[in-house]
Amino acid sequence: MMMKAPYYAVIFTSVKTDATEGYDEKAELMEKLAKEQEGFLGVESARNEIGITVSYWRDLESIKKWKQQTDHWEAQQKGRTTWYKKYTVRIALIEREYSFEN
Amino acid sequence: MMMKAPYYAVIFTSVKTDATEGYDEKAELMEKLAKEQEGFLGVESARNEIGITVSYWRDLESIKKWKQQTDHWEAQQKGRTTWYKKYTVRIALIEREYSFEN
Repeated sequence: MMMKAPYYAVIFTSVKTDATEGYDEKAELMEKLAKEQEGFLGVESARNEIGITVSYWRDLESIKKWKQQTDHWEAQQKGRTTWYKKYTVRIALIEREYSFEN
Repeated sequence: MMMKAPYYAVIFTSVKTDATEGYDEKAELMEKLAKEQEGFLGVESARNEIGITVSYWRDLESIKKWKQQTDHWEAQQKGRTTWYKKYTVRIALIEREYSFEN
């Protein structure tokens, strides 16, 4: 995935609790909904001890709207009460990028 | 891990080849060396189908120096010839962050 900088990234790092019920379905739904948002450019995720999800956005306005989107808002509440031990959200301006492919 | 914005992140996303020999040792050494660099603030990694490593830095100068550090430079060559099918490096200015902890 290669976009044309500048654009924005949301770096979401998290440590989960042992409560897994409903998590995978909700995460999948959130990814589906994010993709439908205006200004959404892409998303990449990986998880071991910690999870890292980086989503890419055209601008800050798109990020703000997604944060306030109703289903996403509810998922965030549930995340805090149930699924996440802790998390950090970082809003970042991508200034440059380069790729290698073999 | 919580720092005081603004600062920089390097978002490194990669897909590995099947060649694993020497990779874990080299990755471990690179993390150790990065931590000794001036301006290094932290690093977080996770890998499933794709790997995501986000390292945090005080400024662009620190990132540039680390990119050019001799051992790291050699590791990058080896990464391109052997370990990585593809990767993308994104240089990002962290503008804001917030954390939740239960």
